[in-house]
Amino acid sequence: MSATAELKGAIFLKNTLILKGNIIYAASGSELTAVENGYLVSEAGVVAGVFPQLPERYAGSEVRDYGDSLIIPGLVDLHLHAPQFAIRGMGMDLELIPWLNQYAFAEEKKYSDLEYAAAAYSAFCAALKSGVTTRAAIFASLHVPATEILMDMLEQSGLVTYVGKVNMDRNSPDYLVESTRDSISDTESWVRRSLETYRNTKPIITPRFVPSCTAELMTALGEIAARYNLPVQSHLSENVNEIKWVKELHPDCETYSDVYDRCGLFGQQPTIMAHCVYLTDYEMDLVRERGVLAVHCPQSNINISSGIAPVRRMLDKGVKMGLGTDVAGGFSISMFRAVADAIQASKMYAVLVDRSQAPLTLAEAFYIATKGGGSFWGSVGSFEPGYEMDAVVIDDSDIIGNSPLTLAQRLERAVHLSDDRHVKAKYVRGEQVM
Amino acid sequence: MSATAELKGAIFLKNTLILKGNIIYAASGSELTAVENGYLVSEAGVVAGVFPQLPERYAGSEVRDYGDSLIIPGLVDLHLHAPQFAIRGMGMDLELIPWLNQYAFAEEKKYSDLEYAAAAYSAFCAALKSGVTTRAAIFASLHVPATEILMDMLEQSGLVTYVGKVNMDRNSPDYLVESTRDSISDTESWVRRSLETYRNTKPIITPRFVPSCTAELMTALGEIAARYNLPVQSHLSENVNEIKWVKELHPDCETYSDVYDRCGLFGQQPTIMAHCVYLTDYEMDLVRERGVLAVHCPQSNINISSGIAPVRRMLDKGVKMGLGTDVAGGFSISMFRAVADAIQASKMYAVLVDRSQAPLTLAEAFYIATKGGGSFWGSVGSFEPGYEMDAVVIDDSDIIGNSPLTLAQRLERAVHLSDDRHVKAKYVRGEQVM
Repeated sequence: MSATAELKGAIFLKNTLILKGNIIYAASGSELTAVENGYLVSEAGVVAGVFPQLPERYAGSEVRDYGDSLIIPGLVDLHLHAPQFAIRGMGMDLELIPWLNQYAFAEEKKYSDLEYAAAAYSAFCAALKSGVTTRAAIFASLHVPATEILMDMLEQSGLVTYVGKVNMDRNSPDYLVESTRDSISDTESWVRRSLETYRNTKPIITPRFVPSCTAELMTALGEIAARYNLPVQSHLSENVNEIKWVKELHPDCETYSDVYDRCGLFGQQPTIMAHCVYLTDYEMDLVRERGVLAVHCPQSNINISSGIAPVRRMLDKGVKMGLGTDVAGGFSISMFRAVADAIQASKMYAVLVDRSQAPLTLAEAFYIATKGGGSFWGSVGSFEPGYEMDAVVIDDSDIIGNSPLTLAQRLERAVHLSDDRHVKAKYVRGEQVM
Repeated sequence: MSATAELKGAIFLKNTLILKGNIIYAASGSELTAVENGYLVSEAGVVAGVFPQLPERYAGSEVRDYGDSLIIPGLVDLHLHAPQFAIRGMGMDLELIPWLNQYAFAEEKKYSDLEYAAAAYSAFCAALKSGVTTRAAIFASLHVPATEILMDMLEQSGLVTYVGKVNMDRNSPDYLVESTRDSISDTESWVRRSLETYRNTKPIITPRFVPSCTAELMTALGEIAARYNLPVQSHLSENVNEIKWVKELHPDCETYSDVYDRCGLFGQQPTIMAHCVYLTDYEMDLVRERGVLAVHCPQSNINISSGIAPVRRMLDKGVKMGLGTDVAGGFSISMFRAVADAIQASKMYAVLVDRSQAPLTLAEAFYIATKGGGSFWGSVGSFEPGYEMDAVVIDDSDIIGNSPLTLAQRLERAVHLSDDRHVKAKYVRGEQVM
């Protein structure tokens, strides 16, 4: 073999990644695709295919054999607040606005202290990394320096994320508010630095929500998003009192969605809107038309007594959906828990609100948590050829019991019964991160 | 010191148990009692008191110092099915009756095989012991030999339990049914042996539920309960279709409760009734009058789409309540999870069904899970003087974060965020079981 051939071989091996195990994923919400003892092959971080036998052309490549473990696409947490991680599981007897004032805002204030921020964000990143999440869209706080600490840590983690420096210039406590001008200029300089600095960690324009942002600020943020070709994330229609408040603040706008829309923050750039519990029919249509990704956050919506989003109706209307833990309205950072919660919430919606709205199946909830949320990054969240290779290996040997199970049954059990102890390995864009 | 004095000292030391730590418990549902760095003192397995400083009279006794850990009463799981543990987290897309037929009955059949039973019950007991549960009321299967294996293992565990050999003589699959006569005689002989054999593991009369028991069988079971002074457990009013079925089977009875009542199974002896999701006002009054303990099983009621029990109404009416995981209608055997689920379910009930029904507070849900369910054994589930000393030590150091918290806040976080890794020690009736 010539030196050139050796080099080519080496490159080939370096870029080809083959995982062997029980592979299961949701290419659609209508069914799970499962291959027992199969091979998940990727090249240069992109899935080449899932094969029951290893194709001849990969005969010389190393196979990482995960035995009887499950191999699933990484889960995508499309809505959570990093600075609230430290207060998860507190104040769960309050609704949104009082909870924000008594808990969330009081905590976020602390992120002006970089030492505090570093310690808290380190715990957040460790927890996010230890579970089944491979990608996330994250709210930081309004503080740029702390947000950059968070982005440094996330970049280190190997996870792929969008991170938003939060904007808020009205109706906020004195200790957690910006001038409109500072908010705009700080955001723009932070965006520039972030775009130059990180590979896996990207800035996302993040007006907190309508009540805490003036129209002037939101319009300027829409312009920044367009100028730098950035995505946008915010909250939409989470709580009945919040919606009333938005209506009072913007009597000229027909709906909550219209406020964002007028400011260029509703699908003019790729947009994530968390919650969507009480959308009108008109708003659901607008969300679909604009390609806005609606993020269902079932646990948070229950914890702070917001309600249950009509997920079946949104799916039937063709709305693109993702799933979020919404730490710390949600107390759990586990995306498996979010999948289980989404199924449970849909059952309660069917039983208590509208029997015609069929509960989510496991395949549907898992699809939303993987390919649904993953679509925000393009071809992410599935093992179809051409998808980015984000995979999680789950050792479920201590929860499967003594009876033979299908892979779909094992996935159902892993979703309901596993925790971070069961995560054996994790790959993001073809690179092993744990 | 004389030999007698030495002996007395030794006995004193042996029977006095002093735990030091952050003690928190619910003597009522209206508030939590918390003592930081306090002393929980018990003598011969019975609580003598909780003290901020150690009283002089205990000066010579050993103190087990749990540092900054939480010390709470053991939690009481008042309803779960041991033979369904092996199928938890499966078939969660079905409602009660099809789920029983497709999953639960098919699994329970396997307990005619003693080897299978031993392996599965061993896993069940290990899981029950590893969490925060100290006492439980458990359904076994109809098989006496397997039930005795379970009771042997539970006795070994140090936990205190009631265990029921299940009775079912109609509307059951061929492979899981008894003749009325065998069911009665097997139950009586099993009761006799159990009463002679165990200290912490007691038999409880367990007709599965009305649809699977003839009136003849239930009446005979009521008589056995009276004859041996045994408690009773069953299911009541869990699912709308089940209630219709009971009405069809017993057109002469006004309500589901009346069927049990006519058979002497509704408070004639101490009685546990699981679920109580759809009780009529009349039934709620009967439950209260008879002192029946109504067991709320929020997770199961959601998983198999039964509904949400009107807990606030039952509490307001003065119904005695306990909490259950209902493994495997519930997938989780964690009683902390059950507390969190009870709070969440009560929020959904308030938001979606009846705004006048205030959600459960943490203190209320924790009270129901400790002193509420514990009342089935008498003075159990609290640290008030005279209560049996069941205690769990929780090391929550990795979930409390960097800000000062009250003990109530730490308990709230432990309920929502901890798992079996946080259980540092467990005491039942004053004996350390882990």
